[in-house]
Amino acid sequence: SVVIQEGDPSGSIALLEVNGAIINTTSDSLFSAEGYNHSNFMDLFYQTMSSPNVEGIIIAVDSPGGGVLESAEIHDAVIEAQENYGKPVYISMGSMAASGGYYLAAPAEQIFAYPQTLTGSIGVIMSSLNITELLDKIGVEETVYKSGPYKDMMSGTRPPTEEEDEILQSIVDEYYDEFVEVIANGRGMDEERVRELGDGRIYTGRQALEAGLIDELGSINDVIAAMQRDLGSNYQVIAIEPKQGLTSMFGLAAE
Amino acid sequence: SVVIQEGDPSGSIALLEVNGAIINTTSDSLFSAEGYNHSNFMDLFYQTMSSPNVEGIIIAVDSPGGGVLESAEIHDAVIEAQENYGKPVYISMGSMAASGGYYLAAPAEQIFAYPQTLTGSIGVIMSSLNITELLDKIGVEETVYKSGPYKDMMSGTRPPTEEEDEILQSIVDEYYDEFVEVIANGRGMDEERVRELGDGRIYTGRQALEAGLIDELGSINDVIAAMQRDLGSNYQVIAIEPKQGLTSMFGLAAE
Amino acid sequence: SVVIQEGDPSGSIALLEVNGAIINTTSDSLFSAEGYNHSNFMDLFYQTMSSPNVEGIIIAVDSPGGGVLESAEIHDAVIEAQENYGKPVYISMGSMAASGGYYLAAPAEQIFAYPQTLTGSIGVIMSSLNITELLDKIGVEETVYKSGPYKDMMSGTRPPTEEEDEILQSIVDEYYDEFVEVIANGRGMDEERVRELGDGRIYTGRQALEAGLIDELGSINDVIAAMQRDLGSNYQVIAIEPKQGLTSMFGLAAE
Amino acid sequence: SVVIQEGDPSGSIALLEVNGAIINTTSDSLFSAEGYNHSNFMDLFYQTMSSPNVEGIIIAVDSPGGGVLESAEIHDAVIEAQENYGKPVYISMGSMAASGGYYLAAPAEQIFAYPQTLTGSIGVIMSSLNITELLDKIGVEETVYKSGPYKDMMSGTRPPTEEEDEILQSIVDEYYDEFVEVIANGRGMDEERVRELGDGRIYTGRQALEAGLIDELGSINDVIAAMQRDLGSNYQVIAIEPKQGLTSMFGLAAE
Amino acid sequence: SVVIQEGDPSGSIALLEVNGAIINTTSDSLFSAEGYNHSNFMDLFYQTMSSPNVEGIIIAVDSPGGGVLESAEIHDAVIEAQENYGKPVYISMGSMAASGGYYLAAPAEQIFAYPQTLTGSIGVIMSSLNITELLDKIGVEETVYKSGPYKDMMSGTRPPTEEEDEILQSIVDEYYDEFVEVIANGRGMDEERVRELGDGRIYTGRQALEAGLIDELGSINDVIAAMQRDLGSNYQVIAIEPKQGLTSMFGLAAE
Amino acid sequence: SVVIQEGDPSGSIALLEVNGAIINTTSDSLFSAEGYNHSNFMDLFYQTMSSPNVEGIIIAVDSPGGGVLESAEIHDAVIEAQENYGKPVYISMGSMAASGGYYLAAPAEQIFAYPQTLTGSIGVIMSSLNITELLDKIGVEETVYKSGPYKDMMSGTRPPTEEEDEILQSIVDEYYDEFVEVIANGRGMDEERVRELGDGRIYTGRQALEAGLIDELGSINDVIAAMQRDLGSNYQVIAIEPKQGLTSMFGLAAE
Amino acid sequence: SVVIQEGDPSGSIALLEVNGAIINTTSDSLFSAEGYNHSNFMDLFYQTMSSPNVEGIIIAVDSPGGGVLESAEIHDAVIEAQENYGKPVYISMGSMAASGGYYLAAPAEQIFAYPQTLTGSIGVIMSSLNITELLDKIGVEETVYKSGPYKDMMSGTRPPTEEEDEILQSIVDEYYDEFVEVIANGRGMDEERVRELGDGRIYTGRQALEAGLIDELGSINDVIAAMQRDLGSNYQVIAIEPKQGLTSMFGLAAE
Amino acid sequence: SVVIQEGDPSGSIALLEVNGAIINTTSDSLFSAEGYNHSNFMDLFYQTMSSPNVEGIIIAVDSPGGGVLESAEIHDAVIEAQENYGKPVYISMGSMAASGGYYLAAPAEQIFAYPQTLTGSIGVIMSSLNITELLDKIGVEETVYKSGPYKDMMSGTRPPTEEEDEILQSIVDEYYDEFVEVIANGRGMDEERVRELGDGRIYTGRQALEAGLIDELGSINDVIAAMQRDLGSNYQVIAIEPKQGLTSMFGLAAE
Repeated sequence: SVVIQEGDPSGSIALLEVNGAIINTTSDSLFSAEGYNHSNFMDLFYQTMSSPNVEGIIIAVDSPGGGVLESAEIHDAVIEAQENYGKPVYISMGSMAASGGYYLAAPAEQIFAYPQTLTGSIGVIMSSLNITELLDKIGVEETVYKSGPYKDMMSGTRPPTEEEDEILQSIVDEYYDEFVEVIANGRGMDEERVRELGDGRIYTGRQALEAGLIDELGSINDVIAAMQRDLGSNYQVIAIEPKQGLTSMFGLAAE
Repeated sequence: SVVIQEGDPSGSIALLEVNGAIINTTSDSLFSAEGYNHSNFMDLFYQTMSSPNVEGIIIAVDSPGGGVLESAEIHDAVIEAQENYGKPVYISMGSMAASGGYYLAAPAEQIFAYPQTLTGSIGVIMSSLNITELLDKIGVEETVYKSGPYKDMMSGTRPPTEEEDEILQSIVDEYYDEFVEVIANGRGMDEERVRELGDGRIYTGRQALEAGLIDELGSINDVIAAMQRDLGSNYQVIAIEPKQGLTSMFGLAAE
Repeated sequence: SVVIQEGDPSGSIALLEVNGAIINTTSDSLFSAEGYNHSNFMDLFYQTMSSPNVEGIIIAVDSPGGGVLESAEIHDAVIEAQENYGKPVYISMGSMAASGGYYLAAPAEQIFAYPQTLTGSIGVIMSSLNITELLDKIGVEETVYKSGPYKDMMSGTRPPTEEEDEILQSIVDEYYDEFVEVIANGRGMDEERVRELGDGRIYTGRQALEAGLIDELGSINDVIAAMQRDLGSNYQVIAIEPKQGLTSMFGLAAE
Repeated sequence: SVVIQEGDPSGSIALLEVNGAIINTTSDSLFSAEGYNHSNFMDLFYQTMSSPNVEGIIIAVDSPGGGVLESAEIHDAVIEAQENYGKPVYISMGSMAASGGYYLAAPAEQIFAYPQTLTGSIGVIMSSLNITELLDKIGVEETVYKSGPYKDMMSGTRPPTEEEDEILQSIVDEYYDEFVEVIANGRGMDEERVRELGDGRIYTGRQALEAGLIDELGSINDVIAAMQRDLGSNYQVIAIEPKQGLTSMFGLAAE
Repeated sequence: SVVIQEGDPSGSIALLEVNGAIINTTSDSLFSAEGYNHSNFMDLFYQTMSSPNVEGIIIAVDSPGGGVLESAEIHDAVIEAQENYGKPVYISMGSMAASGGYYLAAPAEQIFAYPQTLTGSIGVIMSSLNITELLDKIGVEETVYKSGPYKDMMSGTRPPTEEEDEILQSIVDEYYDEFVEVIANGRGMDEERVRELGDGRIYTGRQALEAGLIDELGSINDVIAAMQRDLGSNYQVIAIEPKQGLTSMFGLAAE
Repeated sequence: SVVIQEGDPSGSIALLEVNGAIINTTSDSLFSAEGYNHSNFMDLFYQTMSSPNVEGIIIAVDSPGGGVLESAEIHDAVIEAQENYGKPVYISMGSMAASGGYYLAAPAEQIFAYPQTLTGSIGVIMSSLNITELLDKIGVEETVYKSGPYKDMMSGTRPPTEEEDEILQSIVDEYYDEFVEVIANGRGMDEERVRELGDGRIYTGRQALEAGLIDELGSINDVIAAMQRDLGSNYQVIAIEPKQGLTSMFGLAAE
Repeated sequence: SVVIQEGDPSGSIALLEVNGAIINTTSDSLFSAEGYNHSNFMDLFYQTMSSPNVEGIIIAVDSPGGGVLESAEIHDAVIEAQENYGKPVYISMGSMAASGGYYLAAPAEQIFAYPQTLTGSIGVIMSSLNITELLDKIGVEETVYKSGPYKDMMSGTRPPTEEEDEILQSIVDEYYDEFVEVIANGRGMDEERVRELGDGRIYTGRQALEAGLIDELGSINDVIAAMQRDLGSNYQVIAIEPKQGLTSMFGLAAE
Repeated sequence: SVVIQEGDPSGSIALLEVNGAIINTTSDSLFSAEGYNHSNFMDLFYQTMSSPNVEGIIIAVDSPGGGVLESAEIHDAVIEAQENYGKPVYISMGSMAASGGYYLAAPAEQIFAYPQTLTGSIGVIMSSLNITELLDKIGVEETVYKSGPYKDMMSGTRPPTEEEDEILQSIVDEYYDEFVEVIANGRGMDEERVRELGDGRIYTGRQALEAGLIDELGSINDVIAAMQRDLGSNYQVIAIEPKQGLTSMFGLAAE
């Protein structure tokens, strides 16, 4: 961690970043170590919330979303930081904080966005590609031996059946109900309203403010200032950064 | 192994990971050493269960399944750990624990999943691609000399015969019967019910709980807490990790 | 920073460059470290405006534009430099300073361009590619399961609906209103006139002068001379440059 | 060789592996040194059987088969180990031990397989691709000058004649007769029965047991235990491994 | 700088080269550092004209032209060298000095060309490619959301409108008027004549002499001799060369 | 050379290998140094036959054949070893010893093959590809200027004439006559019989034995044993190996 | 320079090579430094003719021609060597000395060629490719904005107009007239005859001799002998060679 | 040079190789330094013939031919060695010595070939590809501006005219006449007979002997023995080898 704004050193405001697609990749390849790394982020977040010197946490989000489980894990950690450790979490949305990027932000005490931020895209989506016709055109045919009718769901070499459409839609619906609940709780909205807003559309920061999906328009500096004001002290601000790239790799290789 | 949660050092809860497709690859290439390595995992698992300091074992599964033999080997080892060594095995399902990922979990004392986990996909599948028409289109013809009618089963250059369909389906059925039995025994369900649930469909964690395929919803931390509670001691938690990547390779090269 | 024109060392005129597309890339790759780097520029700009020795700032812009948020961030910093730090900012447009390249320049005290500069392109644009027909031709079909009608906006595998056209146009309009306001304020024009000029067309430097979008025709040397004249002293001129390429990378890797 | 199971050191059970396609490649390339290497295996096998400390040999087979000559060479060596050196050979089939993978196993004193093992595929196959029509389509014609009618058998640029079909089928038949004889002798079956079972179809371990093609279901550990029991001593188990990869290469280069 | 022709060392004739397309590339890549580099050339030119030892400047041009702004910048510097520093500039055209390559030469005191030189191509050109039909053929459709009718001028996915044709033609015309004026002033021709000659056609050196676009036919050695004669002294000739290739790169990296 | 079987050191049986296509490549490339190298083999063979310690020579052949000249050169050397040096040459055929691979073996005192060996393919073949139609289809036409009608024989851009067919067939026939003679002499068969057997067909080892093309069925070990028996002494066996791969290359480079 | 034929050291016959296409490339790339380098050749030629020890110059030409300007520059230098320095220049044509390769040779005192040399190809050629139809086929359309009708001559996206055909033909004609004059002067032929011979056709050395385009048939050694005879002394022969390849590159990089 | 056969050291028989296409490549690339290098060969040949210790020269030819000039140069040098230096030259043909490979051999005192050698292909051939139709198909059109009707002979973008066919055929005929003369002189045949044999067809060594194109059938060793016999002494045999590959390159680079 690096001090990026001097201030009262008796406490710290910690700044974390969620930058890119929120997916859990197990890759430790020398060449793909960039971008968001879920388990690294979770480790850093838990270390941060349990650090006695930290008085408040700001998460800068610039993400189009990602996996439902990963988004939910960050969401749960935001609640834990606030409820178990009593440390406020403020969100600073960047160019984009959509779908899972909004999900994780919902429980935060304060959500800030730029007027130009693209957010929303509330909802869940799954899709499958069916290449039956393509195989047919090039003269390839697949024979499948399976133990149950749904064992080759989403396999791509046949169109989905009505029953499969129902199974998959039900999973999407279940995830969506959870998303709605998370927003209703986090933002103190009734569920009807959340469902209205959460039809998948994207919002600008300004539109999101009007809709009550965020609390204020402002830059990352505005978020820092607000937290200092709310905490009643101009605490120093420290950036919590993962080890990166080559350094990280060779560090890991040397374990 | 690395201590990832401090606790009572008189005993340990060991955490193992099954991450990715459960296949037995013999590759030791410098470039493909990542992902799940079956023989490494089996070695680690047996060392773990026979280690006197280990009081319980948690396997974190994030896998779409894999080979029937490899899944069965882990399954057998789970039973061995529990019956021969008297050490409880708890499963913590991640984003996905489907097909072989569920098979191996079935005999565990406790199965936990996140509400968002995708599990199920119970069953067996084989498939063959037939490119006869493609060869015909590009003007290539194959002549086959064989000693018996089934010697070129699944060869791709002719459609399967009815007899071959029967042979392959019977193998799928045999594997499936075994899968059903494993679940019936592991989960204490009657086989009829297993066959109903095991039609190949996928379940969310929540749906799986309702269906009795898992025991509880919860995170990896919840699994650790549950095992500590059940063992009656806050034993320390240690992660059992294979050597990775370059380190592993050069280690091996130096033998 | 490097002194590029000797002069009175009691103060400095700082020269910054916005060169290329104004986008925020998180890449620190060894091979793509060239071109405009937004967070580096912002850091340099803030350090420059707060440096006590700096009496005035010149930004040399050669850019076709970029992201709305990034352009607005530079715009806000120009205002901050002028209002909070009382330091004049002059713009020297190069071959091109269009769209976001004009947006950031609007609030500057003086805007210079070459007669040959291409500027204007005032406005906002979004677009989506729809490959439905292409998929249809090659025999691929997508099935989508979603929680709300707009969750797959701009997905490419279906044409946009009328409602989606309205949602996206409203976002473009909102961004455009802001652009108009920025110019109206920065250039002291009434909004009607800005909307007339800001129909997306490009202007040469000469046309832009006539339209009141810039203040004077002249080279970078003319801008320096003008600022020295306006500040009443032939202050030395220093170039503020980011670390580049290999040097930068290894520097970063060594942190 | 490495001790993989401690035991009575007065004698050893040696464990060898046939892993992958059983072909004789002369390649010593830096990049393809992995997989089964026939001449290395043969050297190791002969050294093992003639080693005075070795009391019994287990071959773990995981192979789809390979060349008829190579399979026969291993087969002959199995007999030599048992008859000339009086050392029992037990086979432990893994995921697959089909075709040549079964051929080599046939004379072993005991054959074990997992229930999930795929074995069988008893028989011989040759095939030729005929691209005459493809050449015709792209406008290429071949003229052949030859000394005898069969000199361009299987050349690909003309369809095979009836006489050639007979010649090739007769070779397949001869190889097959030998395969049948090997099984009849090894397994003590009459030839009629072997021909019934050996129609090319694949068997699961369970089906193979029922058909008498193997002796017992069990894991590699079960094979070890069985041999220790049969030898009347818990001899230590040692793995016989070829040098691999880079090590092997540089070793060879340094000769 | 290197002395390439000995002579009276009390003064120097400086030789500069414009070799290749006159464009301002910001690339400092290890692999593309060759060819014309505009900012390097401008730096060298200004250092040369202000050097007290330099009595006259020869620019050897071998270029098909380039950007209007860059050509104008060299043009302005030629005038500055002659008017502000009182140092004559002679041009020596090589194989080609067309378009911008002629523009920069126009104000020089003397223009020499080889009889074989290709020059002229006086004028300005812009073009846009429209791939609408191509997208239509492959089944891709673009939807555009924009704030003004001209925001997607020259976008390639629709044909230009009549209004856009007028806007772009007016820019071309404005640049052309400037080109005409530059030639009229530099060569002392009336504008009507310049417009007649400047219809875009190319001229050989011989044709250009006849048309009054150059002053004399001759080689680079003839230009040197002429300048020595005109300056009344056989001053030594020095070549002004940028640092190149690897040397340049590592030099730059080490700053 | 390396001792591969201990024995009476007063004399040696030398083992040489012909492994792969018997062609004379001049390549000494770092990357293609593997496989059969004709001039290396010939050097090794002549050194071996002239070495006083060598009592007999075994050539292990695993080859589909190759060039007629190269095959004949080995053939001649086999005779020279037997007649000039009085040293018996025995052949051990591996998986394949066809065409030129049989040609070279014909004069040997004893030829052994495995029952599974593929041999025969006695005869000669030449072929030419004619791409006239392909050129026609893509719209390319060739004009040829030549001094005689046959100067562009086998050129590919026209079909062969009847006269050319005769010329080429006569060459094939001449080579074939020689092949027949070589076998007749080597195997003591009358030519009629050789022509019957040598219709290009392939034989298994067993079929070849029956046809009199080889002397005995047996492995490489059987060949060694036979030679020891025939020589009346268990001479040691040494392998004669060329330097390979990197070693060879750098050795060569250092000459 | 290197002595390649010993002789009277009081004077030297210098041997220069024009090898490849006579074009002026500015590339100093590590990978393309081979082949003819015009400015290197010109430097070497001028150094050679002004060297006091050199009594005569032989240029060995093996070239298909190249640029008109470069050929003319060598031509002029040949005249300068003969007239200004009084040193005879003899040409030795190799496999090919056509077009520009003949142009440069024309003024030499003696031209030798092998009987097999291909020379002639006297004349000038320009060509343009028009891809309008191709763009039309793939659905791409270009819109051009230009200041004069000929600004996009030879652009490729439209067919040339009649006027443009005339302009380009007039340039070809002018260059050709010069070529004719050069031959008429160099070879002492009347222009009518040169135009007859110079219709673009190629000549063998023998045909060229008959046509008077060269003086004698002979090898490079014959040229050396002739010059020694004509100079009346067996002067030593030295080869004038540019620095090459890596050496050249690193030399240059170290300046 | 290396002694490859011991013998009377008072004189030497030198062995040179012509291996591959006889073309004069100027390439000294690190990667293409293999194969025949004409100027290296010529240097070695002249050094060899002028070396006092050399009593006779054998050239081993394995080549399909090459350029007419290069073949003629070797041919001339063979004559020079025999006539000027009084040293016999014997040819040993390998797998192929056709076209230029025969041309160079014609004047040698003795020509040996293997029975399997392919020789002949006496004659000359030129060809041109015409892609007019291809360009037409893809929609590309070329416009050519030229000074004479034959300036674009063999250009590929138009079919040849009748006049051009005559010009090119006359060149082929001239070269052929020379080829015929070379054989007539070298082999002491009358020209009529040479023209009969030299219709372009290929001959085996045996056929060539019968036709009188060679003197004897035999291997390289037979050639050596014959020369030793003819010279009346068993002179030692030395191989004259160029420096090769990396060695050569770095040697050259270090000059």
